[in-house]
Parts: sequence; structure tokens; C-alpha cells
Amino acid sequence: MDANIRDFDSLFIGNMMSASANQQQNIGAYIADWVGSRSSESIRLESACSSGSAAFRAAVLAVASNQVEVAVAAAVEKMTDSPGVEITANLATAADADWEVSQGVSFIALNALLMQRYLHEYKWDHSNFAGFSINAHKNAMTNPYARFHSKLSQEQFDRSPVLCNPITLMDASPIGDGAAAVVVVPYDFLHPTQQHKYIAVAGSAAASDTIAVHSRKDPLWLSAAERSAKDAYAQAGISVKDIDLFEYHDAFTVMAALSLEACGFAPRGKAPLLAMEGHLTIEGQIPVATMGGLKARGHPVGATGMYQIVEVIQQLRGEAGKNQVDGAVYGMAQNIGGSGSNIITHIFHNDN
Amino acid sequence: MDANIRDFDSLFIGNMMSASANQQQNIGAYIADWVGSRSSESIRLESACSSGSAAFRAAVLAVASNQVEVAVAAAVEKMTDSPGVEITANLATAADADWEVSQGVSFIALNALLMQRYLHEYKWDHSNFAGFSINAHKNAMTNPYARFHSKLSQEQFDRSPVLCNPITLMDASPIGDGAAAVVVVPYDFLHPTQQHKYIAVAGSAAASDTIAVHSRKDPLWLSAAERSAKDAYAQAGISVKDIDLFEYHDAFTVMAALSLEACGFAPRGKAPLLAMEGHLTIEGQIPVATMGGLKARGHPVGATGMYQIVEVIQQLRGEAGKNQVDGAVYGMAQNIGGSGSNIITHIFHNDN
Repeated sequence: MDANIRDFDSLFIGNMMSASANQQQNIGAYIADWVGSRSSESIRLESACSSGSAAFRAAVLAVASNQVEVAVAAAVEKMTDSPGVEITANLATAADADWEVSQGVSFIALNALLMQRYLHEYKWDHSNFAGFSINAHKNAMTNPYARFHSKLSQEQFDRSPVLCNPITLMDASPIGDGAAAVVVVPYDFLHPTQQHKYIAVAGSAAASDTIAVHSRKDPLWLSAAERSAKDAYAQAGISVKDIDLFEYHDAFTVMAALSLEACGFAPRGKAPLLAMEGHLTIEGQIPVATMGGLKARGHPVGATGMYQIVEVIQQLRGEAGKNQVDGAVYGMAQNIGGSGSNIITHIFHNDN
Repeated sequence: MDANIRDFDSLFIGNMMSASANQQQNIGAYIADWVGSRSSESIRLESACSSGSAAFRAAVLAVASNQVEVAVAAAVEKMTDSPGVEITANLATAADADWEVSQGVSFIALNALLMQRYLHEYKWDHSNFAGFSINAHKNAMTNPYARFHSKLSQEQFDRSPVLCNPITLMDASPIGDGAAAVVVVPYDFLHPTQQHKYIAVAGSAAASDTIAVHSRKDPLWLSAAERSAKDAYAQAGISVKDIDLFEYHDAFTVMAALSLEACGFAPRGKAPLLAMEGHLTIEGQIPVATMGGLKARGHPVGATGMYQIVEVIQQLRGEAGKNQVDGAVYGMAQNIGGSGSNIITHIFHNDN
């Protein structure tokens, strides 16, 4: 809303399920048409729940190629058109249709298997995961765009109903409708009066892992998170210690833990400690889910990655209101598609 | 098969309907996994029937950005998993769900409306469109990878059964399964012994038009074809006269005509003359559908754009066998998504 551009050259749309949930594909052209830009390039990108950041990365590469000057990266998901059972089936298309889904495994079931294994291997109780969700709900209280504005206590977490053992309602993010967008331009394109507001893309990296969880040598290690984060750190010329806030992909609490470990914020098996000891809060050592995260801001699947990026930019511009991380200079967003099969990491830098 | 690379950095997959036809999304990661490359970036691009060339363009932009060295652009469609009526519904998701499809308009119906209008405005008979399909079938005879190996006569064209008036079976391309891939690298990456085989990307451009046909001021003018072709000519520093062959998007004969006109190969309303006078053959003024085109090589929707690109490259390398266009130096491929709403044009150059 604040970009003040008149038109764009390319529109990159992140979306996961418009084909099945809305019977509308070709939504690049569809959205270009509805926003009144009827001549630009307009393409949709899909990598399941990391579709949003895939669209952003496409915009970054396009602008970096010098073939495109003004790119808009937008992401959208409209999930409330379909009944819940259909949405569960649609979400499962992010997993391996032949070797996972055909066995009756839904997406939450895959995450439940991972969480069960995590609790077993690292000797945690389910109750020890409360900190991730409590932090997310607390931060969402002061984000007007969040889905939930309700505090969460340890007791409420502990008596939350089981969805798929050991995952309870309070481990899981709520799906829903949503959309977000950013404008990507070369620095020189900016008018001097706008330059104070720009935020630089310091790192952009994507990596894959096996589509099926059972094919991984170590299902508790998100190798695509590790690789994309390492690549992004290297591009930015920084280390994990320089990151001032981290918008992670807490679709389920176990994913929050695995992401923190793979990116180097916590030793293997120790991420719950960060949450229990208060290191993940706005004032903590590594603030996460600063606007509520997937857990409490909401998880409109293909759009989520763009929300994360917008929130990092708000933080680095100092526009995060009551949720502001003081003096944030580097922010990271990590968007996970499938059960870790397709992970995209971006690092942003306020170098003004 | 002849690229001799050991691994790639990024995999861009063009595909239209794996969500609905195969219940498998996230097929970037899926395919990266199955080809044994479990760490690279892997993203799917979708712009309806131009998804194949969208994936190719993503690879070109990625390599041009200097962020990616070896990119594989691949495209795939597996349509035979679903019954025909479902495929018709899936194809219709390329049109406007709310304002076209909900009125009962299928994709062939939209093309029939365009053809009806074309015949009326420009005073042609349906029979005058035979040349497009006769040429496609003739070229497919000597392409071992073509769907059809059967000659077509004017008489056969004229007595072909009506599918959706005025479109007959012999105006329409056959859908089916298919996949094709190319490798995109910077010139410097090539070993000197490989450099004689490379083909340069001289132009790459994409443009959009309204998603709904009824929103266009002039439904018989493919403005996105015109704009993307003009941009591609400008990038290549050539004019339409320099193009030695044109892989056009002859999903229906009327699309072949509209594409030839919008790209400047024929004056408005005159494209059927090119076909009738034999100018579109391998030896003609502007050879089209040189390996059979969508009409006779086949139209696996999201993969088609990549087939066109592979075929242009075969021609420019002099590897098109009996279908070789003598001395071809510049070749163009144009891939149309929706009823002209999303069009991508590439120009290739053999500058060895």
C-alpha cells in the first residue's frame, strides 16, 4: 500500500490450492487483470506451503537478472470456499501421493509422527512445547492483522484437545484465507525520498529434501532448512548470531523446534529450552513469530511465506508497533513446504 | 539427455494440473527427489497452458541473475489418470471461473466463439482452415515423438465431426501425457568441446491479457502475443522477417491464425492465406509446427511449452532429421495460456 508505483513489469503469485479449492488456475493473469495491469508478465509459483516465498524469490531473481525492473510478489490462499475434509485432502497433496497419502497419512499425521519421534529421542514431554504457542499468542494480541487475539496459558495448552496424538489443537496453526504482497525493485529505481524506507534482500536461498518423510536418513533434521539458511547466511556475509528476529514456520510446534535447530539457533534436540526459558520473546535472545506466527497470526498456506516477509520488513523499518524488536537490523524468514521437502530462507537487512 | 551435467542448482517445473489430475502438488521437490537431486531448489510454475515456457523463463531469469549457475527447466503433464469429463473441468480452470466457466463455457467453447467470430469478421469458410492441420499432420509423420503419424487431406478435414461448432476434431489438438526438459547455463559454464552445441536465448518475454475473453475490446487480437513477441524481437535485435521457424501454439486452428497475425507474420484476418498457399511448410516462407505442433505432435498442456522450445533447439542445432529447416538461425516459440490471457514468447539463436 505504501510502494507508490504506478505499474509493474512482472507479477509473481504464490498460491498452493486455487486449482482444487477455487477451480481457478492461471491466477497470475487473473490477478493482473483484476488489479488493472493487463499487459505485464504474471505467473503463479507453487511449492506447497512455501509458495509465498517462492513467489518472492522469483521476483528477486527477476529483478537481479536486469530483465525486470518493477516486480510485485504477492501470495494468496482462499481456503474457506471448500469443506474441511476437502481442505485436508488438498493439504495432503504436499506430501507423497503414492507412498504417504495413499496409506491414509494426512498432513497433521506426518507432523504427529515427527513430534512423537522428537519426544522419544530427546526425552521431552508434550507439555514442554507450550512455550512456542504461548509466545505466538502473546505476540498476536498486539497485531491487528492476527487471526487470534487470545492469550494462552501453560494450563490451557496442557488441556488442549488432541488432534492427532501427540499434536493438540494448541500445537497446530489455523488455516484460513489471506493475502500479502511486496514490491521488489533495484535500489537505483527508488526516488531519494523513498530510499530511507527500503529494506535490502541480503540473502535468498531455496533447497529441497525427499518428498516422503520415510525416505530421510534422519527425519528429525530439516536438511533443506539447514542448507537454505547456510546459503542465506553466506550471501548476507553474517552468521546466525547476527539475526535479530526470525519469522519461522510454526505450522506445528514440532516444526518450530526443528527449524530453530536446523538453522543453528539451538543445538539438536534443545529447541524447547529456548521457549521454556523465554528466549523467543520480543525482548529475548532470538525473537520469533513476532506478529503471532503461523500459530496465532494464522496460516493461509500458500500466502504464509509472504506474510512472514512483510512482517520482517515491518520490523526492520521500525513499523511493528507494540511488537517492535528494538534496533533490529537483520531479520530472517523461513518458509517450509511439505514436511520439510521444500524450504526457502530469506535474510533482510536495514542498511540505512 | 545430452547435457552431461552431474547435478543442478535449481529445478523449475512447468505443470498445470497435477493438483487436480494427480492429487500431487509440490512436484518440484517430488521430481528433484526422484531424479536423485535432493538438495537443489525445486519450484513449480503454473500459467495454465503456458506453464512449460513459464518454467523455462524462470530458469533463464535465474541464470541471468548470477544467483544460479545450472538450472534445469522441465515440464510435465499426466492427464490420463483422470476421466475425460474431469479433464474438461480441469482445463476450464484456465478461464475465468466466476464469469466464464460458471456460465457453462468450456475451453473449447471459448475457442469456438473466437473461431465463429473470426469466420464472420474476415469472411472465411471453416474449410479454409484446413491448411494449418494438414501441415501439422504432414510434419508429424517424420517425427518419431509425435502423437499422430497419419496424413490429413482437405477432404478428411472437411468431413471431420463437429466438437463445438464451428470447431471440428481436426481443428483441435489432442491432450495426453508428456514431459520435456532443457538445461540452462551461462555460456562460460560450457566446456569448449560443448560450445558448438549451445543455442543462445536471444529473447524472453511474457505478457498478459484479460482472463475473460468478453473483457477484451478486440477478442480477435492476441495483445499478449503481440507484446511478448515485440519485446522478444527487440531483445534479440531482429524483426519478424528474421525468424526462420515458428513453433506456435496451435491448440485450435483459430489460435494458430491469431498467433501468426499478432506476431506480425500475417496481416490481420489473413493468416489462413499463409496456410492455403503453402507458406507454413518446412520449405515455406515461415515454417510452423515443424515437428507436428500441438495438433499432431500432441498437447500435454503444461508440458507443451517445453516441447516447443526443445523442437526449436533441435532445428537450430540441425538435429531435426527429415523435418530440418535448412540453415535455420533464429527460431521462435510462443506458448499461450488461457484463451490468450498469458502468453510467453522465446527467440533462440544459433550464433556459432
